[in-house]
Amino acid sequence: MTHPAFSTDLSRLIRPRSIALIGASERPQSIGGRTLSNLLDHSQIDGELYLVNPTRTELRGQRCWPSIASLPQTPDVAVIAVPASGVIAVMEECAARRVPFAIILTSGFGEAGAEGERAQARLKEIAEQAGMRIYGPNCPGLTNVNQRLGMTFSPSFPHDLVKGPIGLATQGGGLGRNVMQAMERGIGIGLWASTGNEVDLQVADFIHYMATAPDIKVIVTLLEGIKDGPRFLAALQCAADNGKPVIALKVGKSEYGQRAAQSHTASLTGSAEVNSAVFRQYGVIEVDDIDELVDTAWLFARAMPGEREAIGVYCSSGGTTALTADAVGTAGLTLAEFAPETTALLRSKLPDYAAVNNPVDTTAAVLSDADLIESTLGAVAADPNLGCVIAPIALDYGETTIRMAQTIIAAQKRVQSPIVPIWMSDRLGEGYRMLVAAGFAPPRSIGKAIAAIRRWTEWGRQHRGAAGRPIRRLPVAAPSAPAGAVRSLSELQAKALLAQAGIPLLPVAVARTRDEARQLADGMGYPVVAKIASPDILHKSDIGGVRVGISDGAQVELAWDDIMASARQHKPGAAIDGLLIEKMAPGGGVELMAGVTRDPVFGHVMTFGLGGVYVEILRDVTRRLLPLSPADAASMVREIRCFPVLAGARGRPVADVPALERLLLGVSEFVMANAARIEEMDLNPIWVGAEGEGALPLDAVVVERSAA
Amino acid sequence: MTHPAFSTDLSRLIRPRSIALIGASERPQSIGGRTLSNLLDHSQIDGELYLVNPTRTELRGQRCWPSIASLPQTPDVAVIAVPASGVIAVMEECAARRVPFAIILTSGFGEAGAEGERAQARLKEIAEQAGMRIYGPNCPGLTNVNQRLGMTFSPSFPHDLVKGPIGLATQGGGLGRNVMQAMERGIGIGLWASTGNEVDLQVADFIHYMATAPDIKVIVTLLEGIKDGPRFLAALQCAADNGKPVIALKVGKSEYGQRAAQSHTASLTGSAEVNSAVFRQYGVIEVDDIDELVDTAWLFARAMPGEREAIGVYCSSGGTTALTADAVGTAGLTLAEFAPETTALLRSKLPDYAAVNNPVDTTAAVLSDADLIESTLGAVAADPNLGCVIAPIALDYGETTIRMAQTIIAAQKRVQSPIVPIWMSDRLGEGYRMLVAAGFAPPRSIGKAIAAIRRWTEWGRQHRGAAGRPIRRLPVAAPSAPAGAVRSLSELQAKALLAQAGIPLLPVAVARTRDEARQLADGMGYPVVAKIASPDILHKSDIGGVRVGISDGAQVELAWDDIMASARQHKPGAAIDGLLIEKMAPGGGVELMAGVTRDPVFGHVMTFGLGGVYVEILRDVTRRLLPLSPADAASMVREIRCFPVLAGARGRPVADVPALERLLLGVSEFVMANAARIEEMDLNPIWVGAEGEGALPLDAVVVERSAA
Repeated sequence: MTHPAFSTDLSRLIRPRSIALIGASERPQSIGGRTLSNLLDHSQIDGELYLVNPTRTELRGQRCWPSIASLPQTPDVAVIAVPASGVIAVMEECAARRVPFAIILTSGFGEAGAEGERAQARLKEIAEQAGMRIYGPNCPGLTNVNQRLGMTFSPSFPHDLVKGPIGLATQGGGLGRNVMQAMERGIGIGLWASTGNEVDLQVADFIHYMATAPDIKVIVTLLEGIKDGPRFLAALQCAADNGKPVIALKVGKSEYGQRAAQSHTASLTGSAEVNSAVFRQYGVIEVDDIDELVDTAWLFARAMPGEREAIGVYCSSGGTTALTADAVGTAGLTLAEFAPETTALLRSKLPDYAAVNNPVDTTAAVLSDADLIESTLGAVAADPNLGCVIAPIALDYGETTIRMAQTIIAAQKRVQSPIVPIWMSDRLGEGYRMLVAAGFAPPRSIGKAIAAIRRWTEWGRQHRGAAGRPIRRLPVAAPSAPAGAVRSLSELQAKALLAQAGIPLLPVAVARTRDEARQLADGMGYPVVAKIASPDILHKSDIGGVRVGISDGAQVELAWDDIMASARQHKPGAAIDGLLIEKMAPGGGVELMAGVTRDPVFGHVMTFGLGGVYVEILRDVTRRLLPLSPADAASMVREIRCFPVLAGARGRPVADVPALERLLLGVSEFVMANAARIEEMDLNPIWVGAEGEGALPLDAVVVERSAA
Repeated sequence: MTHPAFSTDLSRLIRPRSIALIGASERPQSIGGRTLSNLLDHSQIDGELYLVNPTRTELRGQRCWPSIASLPQTPDVAVIAVPASGVIAVMEECAARRVPFAIILTSGFGEAGAEGERAQARLKEIAEQAGMRIYGPNCPGLTNVNQRLGMTFSPSFPHDLVKGPIGLATQGGGLGRNVMQAMERGIGIGLWASTGNEVDLQVADFIHYMATAPDIKVIVTLLEGIKDGPRFLAALQCAADNGKPVIALKVGKSEYGQRAAQSHTASLTGSAEVNSAVFRQYGVIEVDDIDELVDTAWLFARAMPGEREAIGVYCSSGGTTALTADAVGTAGLTLAEFAPETTALLRSKLPDYAAVNNPVDTTAAVLSDADLIESTLGAVAADPNLGCVIAPIALDYGETTIRMAQTIIAAQKRVQSPIVPIWMSDRLGEGYRMLVAAGFAPPRSIGKAIAAIRRWTEWGRQHRGAAGRPIRRLPVAAPSAPAGAVRSLSELQAKALLAQAGIPLLPVAVARTRDEARQLADGMGYPVVAKIASPDILHKSDIGGVRVGISDGAQVELAWDDIMASARQHKPGAAIDGLLIEKMAPGGGVELMAGVTRDPVFGHVMTFGLGGVYVEILRDVTRRLLPLSPADAASMVREIRCFPVLAGARGRPVADVPALERLLLGVSEFVMANAARIEEMDLNPIWVGAEGEGALPLDAVVVERSAA
């Protein structure tokens, strides 16, 4: 179930039948020397390894070939470890030989100034002409732990020994290597792609590969910038279709981070808000830090979330029990109600003063009688009402803690729901090592464990979904790269466009004379609003160009005179079309807003939320890539913090939510139908009345881009 | 600088000249046996240790005494390790002998049902009559690491070997022991008090002690409930006066946590919001989890924050640099601008493609040339523009990482600003151990390190303060324990009370006749609002009892007729005082709110924030214990999220903030002057006009408690 337009068959890159190492070297600290050692000493190569070095006939007892052209067969992968000055010549040779994949380890390209950028563009050209795919440059290489193949110069590869179900796709190497070292928790990373400058192959391609790779269950990605939005989305869609969680850490949430990432990878990080919205929309789990990423991914690697979401807590310290229960509640998770037999068993075994309802506090009684752990933890873990058990271990108490670890390990063998031990102590004793060896990957604090469990639970809920397939299938298309000039439509033009598109609006028209103004207003019914209509006057209220609450014909005429006088006084040369007359919104109602912008990576994005004066201060908004589905519109309305106001909080009337949803969908359809043309839209405020009264944009800004 | 009313001299408890252990036992796993071993084998006692056990004449070569009465001198401390059934008899003996302090280790009192509670009340009675102070019961004892004295049964005491400047005051033992194990990070805890059921001595007493103890620099506390608010505040005040940071973790932020804590300690946890407000007001650093607590406290133990707040970042991985910069920005911290000489030095040493401005990315060049670290990290750390340097270590890269650790240790010796290494890898190699041994206590993730630095920086800012002494000195008094009946005043009564107290209000009065209503309105000037005035009608609008926007005398009379008719129809038997006539608030303005409640632990607390329909949904509020200082009122107004609306955001007029501050101070003074009487107040909405227009409560609820 890959997405054909964006899927590349990477199997010969990841499991090549033959590899050529160009720049193989005997100097152990050089890039070529380290890569040679990783391939010769630490990899299990199913096929041929050719060493290429024109200055040698032999290296470490292996034959050396003078060039790629001289090789007896075309290798699947050329691993290029020559200095930057030699890379282009080598790539030309690879192209001539029709090598399908080149891994360029060498640095000094796009990340190293204008000259490097030119060289990098040339690499791309060579590869495109030959139909060759490039991985890199400026990368540590590809680390295939599950097949024990290290096409990498990393001196750490010999220690990357823990095979496992986690796939890791990163751009930079340092942070990726940090995640690799989380193998110390006892669960391994089967494949690590660190794509460097991404002149061709991107993180997205490896996510797509991992989404269908049978040995990968959980996908982890670290991103500094996303080069190709649709390609990335297709990969996420494929992972969702295959039921594999994607856990992502994206740099660029603050200006400092954006600047630093740009200086590191020379790629724009994009808008953090848009990225996060896209992640949510595709069911990607976004984390803020590496430790959160590891806690979450390793939990998924242990077990996938099931139907039961409630949690059991089992602990021998009262304070720790309370702190854990607190964190469960603060995270919005639910403590399970134990089945009667669970509570009965706990009551029969534990001291009178123990807490036998969830959260369980065995009390320190277990410290002097470790048998108590065995007879009670198993019963909690087997309770039919819970989906996982948290077992915080506050202390390293030597033998008692070892017994606790052994009991957790034994109990887990008998139950499906994961038991999540939290190793809270800075003392990492034998109990910790036993849990690691048994694959428990214990989180190191209550907060971190609960954060991981919350993400795990929410992912499960989203992917079960009411409709069974909650992750949207977007029509994936490259966002158009518009080039023409940009202009703002007048309010009347904007509203006319919206009205054509079937979006409900209050009656509005421009009167060219005072009489016409009165007739228009009479026709609409009072009260009305009058605004100066002039392409030269943008800030109408600043020059006295707006009058609200006009309640009869006489007031319309008065408004005409006042506004025209005021406009002539403040903007003597302005071209004046007349007076815009609009029916005034009814009293009551709530003010919301919807805006559309064009994200350079992902295309049109809608922002919806609280309108009026609080919009920028309270930032009570939510976002979606367009087009919206009806389910998207419904959830956008419900996920803003102010939704209770629409739902009738504090004695307010219930708002016309269906009309609001129709409005959002209408805007989405309008923008999609005019995607090349619409640069930006802002409907603020949108008036939403009580049930049956409708939802109406009161003001509309549309910014168009003309064809170039 | 202790607070005399709440300060107890604990020096003879913490450094006793003589100790009696009652219940000394030879069974190594018993409470009495473990305590004996801790005292005999692992403590350095400056004075006498008396063992009391009537069944023995000798234990482990030490003389045993049959009773406290038989001892040759009165011990400073009696450590009681007998079973629960024997504790009261022992306490009576101690009282007879005038023992000043008893540490009761035994469990089975307040935490163990009604019988235990009765026994505990008896303990308190005995102690109070004799002027004896009790520590416990149901506690692990007192651990004085700096003087190497363990009056505790904990089998971990022999490992509590790292002396240090941190003082730890907890209620429960398990979580406290968890913090004790953070000694593994290389900085020790000098004194740990774990006060158990707190029948007498409380956590507050030990905070107060530590606030003046010369060997304690940083105070850490874990709280499940606060028994005595004023005593606790006096301790916090003393710590603030002595410039010692207090880092607090308080259980009970969610309902689950409150229930669990209550079941554990049988004490109410109080309102989490009020606790947090009190903590902020006293400069206490509140954390949410143990790992945050340790990261923060250990950073304070390393260095106190100085005047320079800007941060340097030094790293060898580009992605890690960007992630760190991101976290600095997200936390609202500032990256330092390097001095020109720092940048010049970095440029001369590092590769062209390194980032030589803050954040520094040395690139992986340092992995092959570790001398580069030495020549550049020192320059960054010595930069005159920064207050600390963050050095994230993404990888355990063996020798290179060891060199990095050595360089950090060497560089720190030459500079004041702390260098904060972050050990991000799950692989804890030699480099980690070197940093720990050198007292760096490395945090384990970027997020955790930045959170600690943010708290450290903010504490520094608050404690430097503009006025030099920003922590308030409250008139500390026990909140009155009111017992009388509670009643709501009518709106007119409430407003009359406020008006008496000098709080500005719109003109308001009750008219008894239709004529009087018109006269009152004419006198106030139009528009006015009319509301039914009846002690029997609370929800006035529900019965058509409110009319707004009345603009002339005829409309007043109409309103009288309509409202009276409506009231008679809907509430036929209601006693009607007349019609409340109030001048209507001017147009424009912002709606805020202020409320006062009485917290059972701390007394009257004001909540201030956004008013109207959004108040409960957006929860944009802040809180303070009363009385407010002018500085409190000013910062309350400025710390709500909506403050930009008052400050003139989006073209709004600047609001009358001075009037709003005066209003809050006026309410505070009014409540303090009537503290016994005022149970609750709610001014919602408060209308705040533009500069010079004032701030006026439009509605007022006052709930009074009459004398019992």
